[in-house]
Amino acid sequence: MTSPQQTLIVDLGDRSYPIYIGSGLLQQSALLGQHITGKQVMVVTNSTIAPLYLQTVLDGLKGLKIEGFQVDSLVLEDGEKHKHLDTVNLIFDHLLRQRHNRTTTLIALGGGVIGDMTGYAAAAYQRGVNFIQMPTTLLSQVDSSVGGKTGVNHPLGKNMIGAFHQPQCVVIDTESLKTLPPRELSAGLAEVIKYGLIAQPDLFVWLEQNIEQLRQLAPQFISQAIYQSCECKARIVAADEREQGVRALLNFGHTFGHAIETEMGYGNWLHGEAVGAGMAMAADLSYRLGWLTKLDVQRIQDLLTASGLPLWGPEQMHAITYLQHMQVDKKVTDGTIRLILLQHLGEAVVTSDFGHELLQQTLQQCSDI
Amino acid sequence: MTSPQQTLIVDLGDRSYPIYIGSGLLQQSALLGQHITGKQVMVVTNSTIAPLYLQTVLDGLKGLKIEGFQVDSLVLEDGEKHKHLDTVNLIFDHLLRQRHNRTTTLIALGGGVIGDMTGYAAAAYQRGVNFIQMPTTLLSQVDSSVGGKTGVNHPLGKNMIGAFHQPQCVVIDTESLKTLPPRELSAGLAEVIKYGLIAQPDLFVWLEQNIEQLRQLAPQFISQAIYQSCECKARIVAADEREQGVRALLNFGHTFGHAIETEMGYGNWLHGEAVGAGMAMAADLSYRLGWLTKLDVQRIQDLLTASGLPLWGPEQMHAITYLQHMQVDKKVTDGTIRLILLQHLGEAVVTSDFGHELLQQTLQQCSDI
Repeated sequence: MTSPQQTLIVDLGDRSYPIYIGSGLLQQSALLGQHITGKQVMVVTNSTIAPLYLQTVLDGLKGLKIEGFQVDSLVLEDGEKHKHLDTVNLIFDHLLRQRHNRTTTLIALGGGVIGDMTGYAAAAYQRGVNFIQMPTTLLSQVDSSVGGKTGVNHPLGKNMIGAFHQPQCVVIDTESLKTLPPRELSAGLAEVIKYGLIAQPDLFVWLEQNIEQLRQLAPQFISQAIYQSCECKARIVAADEREQGVRALLNFGHTFGHAIETEMGYGNWLHGEAVGAGMAMAADLSYRLGWLTKLDVQRIQDLLTASGLPLWGPEQMHAITYLQHMQVDKKVTDGTIRLILLQHLGEAVVTSDFGHELLQQTLQQCSDI
Repeated sequence: MTSPQQTLIVDLGDRSYPIYIGSGLLQQSALLGQHITGKQVMVVTNSTIAPLYLQTVLDGLKGLKIEGFQVDSLVLEDGEKHKHLDTVNLIFDHLLRQRHNRTTTLIALGGGVIGDMTGYAAAAYQRGVNFIQMPTTLLSQVDSSVGGKTGVNHPLGKNMIGAFHQPQCVVIDTESLKTLPPRELSAGLAEVIKYGLIAQPDLFVWLEQNIEQLRQLAPQFISQAIYQSCECKARIVAADEREQGVRALLNFGHTFGHAIETEMGYGNWLHGEAVGAGMAMAADLSYRLGWLTKLDVQRIQDLLTASGLPLWGPEQMHAITYLQHMQVDKKVTDGTIRLILLQHLGEAVVTSDFGHELLQQTLQQCSDI
């Protein structure tokens, strides 16, 4: 028994692919079968997700009855702190030991870390093989599994090594959220709020009204939030696959957030938590520029709080620390920090035209509280 | 004073780029200037090439007079045994420490190993930055610097990790061959011979007539050999950038050759030497299939010998060892070994239709001699 399934298409010409959203999709192997072209599959997951869902996915794959079908799996340690080249190398090792060839398909079963690493392994293995995203966290369902950004962290910067590599499809089973810790649910909501803030004022208002239902995983509300988020992201990615322009708006809150994650060590702050705090900072700076009203900022802060997200960065982080990390952000061009800021609720711009002093004030405000 | 310069275009739509071939081009910074769009450059080279040519290239870059221009360099250890992920990570480290952003340009100054690693670093750094190839060995000038294949080795297989990433341009200074050891010159000639064998029978005949002039680096002959090789490769790459079809022909001799390199440890046999032996094996199998005449095989062996190349693999390698390595070659699809074989001198095909027994005979022949 599954609830109605929704399908979205990410429109990227010959790299277009569907996103399937619904309840119980992890059991529906036929969905996967449509997107597996070779005779080898490797499911990559982590030690938290494996006991919950790996067997379900493997059983589904075995049910596909492809002649001479080889299905392997690899269970990695869980956590952002493992998102580095050495872990990706474990995927390469396993692929080579099990003799996977160019026609293999990797399946990323897990959250954003698994998706990013598996996607990057797929981009690089034999210079590129197919992969499928099966995101199991809200954050990865609404953000990282869509759009083809893959990669790993480096001690000196987040997501500094990677590739643009689009999946064959994305399978989002909303049932998997039932096993997600509340803190991670909140982290995922940060990205949903982001879509409202940068491009969909209606979504922002809807979130203000329904945040409690979302935190309680009311099925229709969760499905709608995921669908609207993926639709927003798919539209932006289709317009700018390789982040030459408008796609940068998706990084709203992320430049501040990456500084927090880098300083605190990956995984101590969840990505969504850091982005939540980063969005509050970006809103504060937008207010100082006279773009947002005090009320706008208050509404943003209220929604973040109602979502269970922090409003500011870690106490021990000072302005100078933020600036140091922000200088190596990928959005820095020729030494100039570029930020995504809000001209209105629901409308973001990329700008380097904010005045260093106002940025300082925002950063000091964050570290004072 | 430079001799006339030739320019070839690799036609890949919006990823098209020029190959400049001439004497003294390392000094001609204006050539580079046309292809540097940002304000940061990092020259990556090795400990053999650095004392010979790095300062020349750095001086040229400094002469470009780009406002706020940042020029860094990184000297890696020389040799195929360093062509792995850990060395690429040294490039990432240096780029991050020197705060290179998305608009940086990497310049690969050296042979195929430097080109493959620098190109791969460029493909992966911040999900892709620009790079320029300045190949200094014959092998890299006629083969690896053209076509956008980048990557590194894995203990379980050669070039198993990588990306297709096209350079902004390729600058081939024929003067740099004067410092190339004769053994490496021979290794480069293996790839020139390959173009003759797979697609240009006239080139094969020309090589038979002029191999001595080439080994003595007679300028007009060397330029012509490089130009014809690049032209052949550019044409094949333009027809099939991502190796879905005809590009596989460029791997003539390479499946056997990779087996030798993997078994012997990278760098003990030069790539071109292994390919030379591999071409002799592929010719032998083509003869057993009735496609080549005994005379054809003799001519190939004579040209390889005249080029200073080995005719067979290492004595200690037996048929079973070849087969084990060949099973994990990238050209293996669904467990079937595919080889590039010659239907005639100057005409190659990809085939899995050669009969296991004939392959065994060829491999046994190799290990018996």
